[in-house]
Amino acid sequence: MTTNADRKRPGRPPGTSDTRDRILECARELFARNGITNTSIRSIAAGAGVDPALVHHYFGTKTQLFAAAIEIPIDPMSIIGPLKEVPVDQLGRALPSLLLPLWDSELGKGFIATLRSILAGSDVSMVRSFLQDLIATEVGGRVDDPPGSGRVRVQFVASQLVGIVMARYILELEPFKSLPVEQIVDTVAPNLQRYLTGELPQFSGD
Amino acid sequence: MTTNADRKRPGRPPGTSDTRDRILECARELFARNGITNTSIRSIAAGAGVDPALVHHYFGTKTQLFAAAIEIPIDPMSIIGPLKEVPVDQLGRALPSLLLPLWDSELGKGFIATLRSILAGSDVSMVRSFLQDLIATEVGGRVDDPPGSGRVRVQFVASQLVGIVMARYILELEPFKSLPVEQIVDTVAPNLQRYLTGELPQFSGD
Repeated sequence: MTTNADRKRPGRPPGTSDTRDRILECARELFARNGITNTSIRSIAAGAGVDPALVHHYFGTKTQLFAAAIEIPIDPMSIIGPLKEVPVDQLGRALPSLLLPLWDSELGKGFIATLRSILAGSDVSMVRSFLQDLIATEVGGRVDDPPGSGRVRVQFVASQLVGIVMARYILELEPFKSLPVEQIVDTVAPNLQRYLTGELPQFSGD
Repeated sequence: MTTNADRKRPGRPPGTSDTRDRILECARELFARNGITNTSIRSIAAGAGVDPALVHHYFGTKTQLFAAAIEIPIDPMSIIGPLKEVPVDQLGRALPSLLLPLWDSELGKGFIATLRSILAGSDVSMVRSFLQDLIATEVGGRVDDPPGSGRVRVQFVASQLVGIVMARYILELEPFKSLPVEQIVDTVAPNLQRYLTGELPQFSGD
């Protein structure tokens, strides 16, 4: 569909930044439109007019490509991966223990800046897809007790974690902004755990 | 300082929209710089070069002027006021019960749009002031047990409530966006109540 016009331009090394940019552009478009789950490396490669192997060569896995597309400096799976080893009844503490030091770090500054510019724009579908697709699948499946509750459980957790990002890094409420990581972890962990494995009203009797 | 130049323009009724605009502009500047608590109607009137009585006449109370300044269609005290009658041990349920129907309503659409444009801009100090000054004073003083914990308790509550706004109205996560109000209230109420009156780790032993 798209031709590799950039490869023919004189004076440019073949298939470098233009190709990368075209892959990223195509990835953004498809991730935003169809979500992470329903977008394949193959479809992104087709849209960009390149071989899927080239996409893998440049960007690695699909989640690494997603991270590159929304300009966050880490692969989401480097967070989600380790969580798979954590017993479900400890996830409420593990989540903020992993995320807060990351957000507080230099890497985190880029993440917060990206989040902010996404919120400022009109298109939040990439963040939505990340939370709805990736987190719901990776974590939601483990807390789906009773069946059907997992997705909702994870979204309540997401609401609390997104709220912490807002309060600490974007609204910069004091003293919240300056609280030690351990104090926030200790305070929110039982609440997150309740969302994950506690009895939730609408799922207890029905 | 500022002269009432607009009053002298021919064909305009005296002291109308220009004066109002000047008061609002001055209010925004002072609220953003000094917060709600440290800004007086008198100082806003002085900045706008009008009599404080005129500010009251146009805008009513200070919180009503604040609401007009950030373009939300209701006086924050119409929410905060009724909460004063609610026993502290029921606030965790009362807060989302009051706020969610408001946010879901037509009025709420304006509020969400305002919040979104504030987040998009670089200056979130008005929202910060609202949460830090007004809510911390009005609600925080009632849950300051042990002494010194009230402000932090309220900011954890704020983080959860802001996160609900993000998940439901801005990120529009499904199914979160479509959950009945009662389900969200029932699910978050115990967590909010714990933040307000539960034993928080850092305030239990010290």
